[in-house]
Amino acid sequence: MAKPLDPAALGEFGLIEALRRRAKSAGHSWAEAIGDDAALLRPRVGQELAMTADALVEGVHFRWETTDGRALAHKTLAVNLSDLAAMGARPKGFLLSLALPPIALPQRLDGFVSGLLAASKRYACPLVGGDIVSSPAWMLSVTAVGEVPRGKALLRRGAKPGDRLMLTGQVGGSALGLALLEAGVPHEAGGAARPFVRRHLKPEPRLEAGQKLRGLASAALDVSDGVAQDASQIARASGVAVQIDVASLPQPRGFAAACERLGLDPDVLALSGGEDFELLFTVAAKAPAASAIAKRIGCPVREIGRVVRGKGVSLLRNGAPIDLQRLGFDHFKPNPLPSDK
Amino acid sequence: MAKPLDPAALGEFGLIEALRRRAKSAGHSWAEAIGDDAALLRPRVGQELAMTADALVEGVHFRWETTDGRALAHKTLAVNLSDLAAMGARPKGFLLSLALPPIALPQRLDGFVSGLLAASKRYACPLVGGDIVSSPAWMLSVTAVGEVPRGKALLRRGAKPGDRLMLTGQVGGSALGLALLEAGVPHEAGGAARPFVRRHLKPEPRLEAGQKLRGLASAALDVSDGVAQDASQIARASGVAVQIDVASLPQPRGFAAACERLGLDPDVLALSGGEDFELLFTVAAKAPAASAIAKRIGCPVREIGRVVRGKGVSLLRNGAPIDLQRLGFDHFKPNPLPSDK
Repeated sequence: MAKPLDPAALGEFGLIEALRRRAKSAGHSWAEAIGDDAALLRPRVGQELAMTADALVEGVHFRWETTDGRALAHKTLAVNLSDLAAMGARPKGFLLSLALPPIALPQRLDGFVSGLLAASKRYACPLVGGDIVSSPAWMLSVTAVGEVPRGKALLRRGAKPGDRLMLTGQVGGSALGLALLEAGVPHEAGGAARPFVRRHLKPEPRLEAGQKLRGLASAALDVSDGVAQDASQIARASGVAVQIDVASLPQPRGFAAACERLGLDPDVLALSGGEDFELLFTVAAKAPAASAIAKRIGCPVREIGRVVRGKGVSLLRNGAPIDLQRLGFDHFKPNPLPSDK
Repeated sequence: MAKPLDPAALGEFGLIEALRRRAKSAGHSWAEAIGDDAALLRPRVGQELAMTADALVEGVHFRWETTDGRALAHKTLAVNLSDLAAMGARPKGFLLSLALPPIALPQRLDGFVSGLLAASKRYACPLVGGDIVSSPAWMLSVTAVGEVPRGKALLRRGAKPGDRLMLTGQVGGSALGLALLEAGVPHEAGGAARPFVRRHLKPEPRLEAGQKLRGLASAALDVSDGVAQDASQIARASGVAVQIDVASLPQPRGFAAACERLGLDPDVLALSGGEDFELLFTVAAKAPAASAIAKRIGCPVREIGRVVRGKGVSLLRNGAPIDLQRLGFDHFKPNPLPSDK
């Protein structure tokens, strides 16, 4: 580890230089990266570039009481890479606008920078540019850039009546992890809480699965606002209705028991808990079974519903409609669930 | 004008939809823009992509007492396009992370959105994606994307001993404008204050000049932190020293008089005032005279110094060295000048 990064002592240019030095070791293929007025990417022939921006704000998306610099940095990059995964794109690099208080604690900044470069290496996605500014609160805005073969990106608008709705992995774990943190479980917790807390603090984007879904999924997005809310985005973009079979939603081991201890409804959490960063996608009726798709894309896949004519999302249990008010989450509206968004 | 945008009433998705509808009319060439997990750009053969990110924070980079939503939106985009100009790149589009209080005043948000789309149209740079989040304060982070023919980007590192240092337009006006605003001049001021206040609130990126400097400038950047500070970036990146002739710095009409009334030193302001967003560049000794370059790139150009062997920046007046302590500005260090950065 290099010397700790003290923003007050280093100043803006010192910080940028320290980041540039540490980022350099990652190695990458950009013509220019940190240090000039802009980063320069030489696109490969036949590839499109996918670009997405997501911001995390202190006190809104995270609190220092329930995370640390390393985990925060991981999540900042991961939530953006999840959007690339949902397009079927391979990460090429990212820009970071880092807004932090002039008196930011050096250990937080140091943890953040170490965590960012570790995540950058893990996902082969170099830091290529950005901005450092002072601010009353921490705010992290990333723009991630990925490449996808021309015309092959996974869009939200391709779902057709008759298609089947599929989900990678499991949902609700991140929302449960947040609820546990808010209930006072320490973020280094072990035991039964650990997988949920970890899922909330250090989510994994489904990058490989996303790329392998190209040519198979008719529509796709990542689960950031809850399965029900996100399914409604596919419905809206595709001009169709989506039915979700609540009983088929895969819940993590120990999930229902942990929910009950906190007085939470596991079905509600699984349907509307955000930030699981799984992929929600549709495939044609004649596409392979979920188990065969799972094998092809390298992660668990479950069939959780279907696409029909109409509008919006309906929730069924064993074929009968159920009603759960106000699912999902909207940044500027009251949120009935514990959430850090 | 459409109905006012009230973040509390619209919610996140309503706001995104309103932006998407308004942005759509701009028209552009992206394969996908607002509405999917990421924007999709189909790069043109033989072009590189320049990407830059810059953030503005309420209370740090701007105060509502001295600006309004329209001007703020213009500046948010313009400071990013200035970085593209400094690379010789043509704007292709931008992503915006918009963090604002849930109770943001509708008229501010409305002004911001109108101003953003007006600036987007003016610079032929469509809004293609981003993120809207709630936050304790307004924070605006833009990533701008531009294209530049392969290998032709203007970099900071190409200056050689013997090269001449050139500047477009005039400097110090933006810092003076800010000083006037801080001294209580209203931001709609007319009269002698107007050009300076306007320059501070609604800077113009030198996009056309930047593109026309390709193949002529040996190094270039935009003046965001003050001529002296920015010249030191060329010196550092190129491994050379830069001499600036203070007497040759072009100052706007009425600049010295207005500085004196505020008790400011015009030379200090011209050398270290940030945010003029002019282009500072070097050309070979045998390149055309400043007047010929001005004609070629379509804006005023002045020769203000030269590149020599060595390190750092030195300031001369009529050939004799002068010393001005701590010029320029650094976000995390005390700043001797009025500045909004």
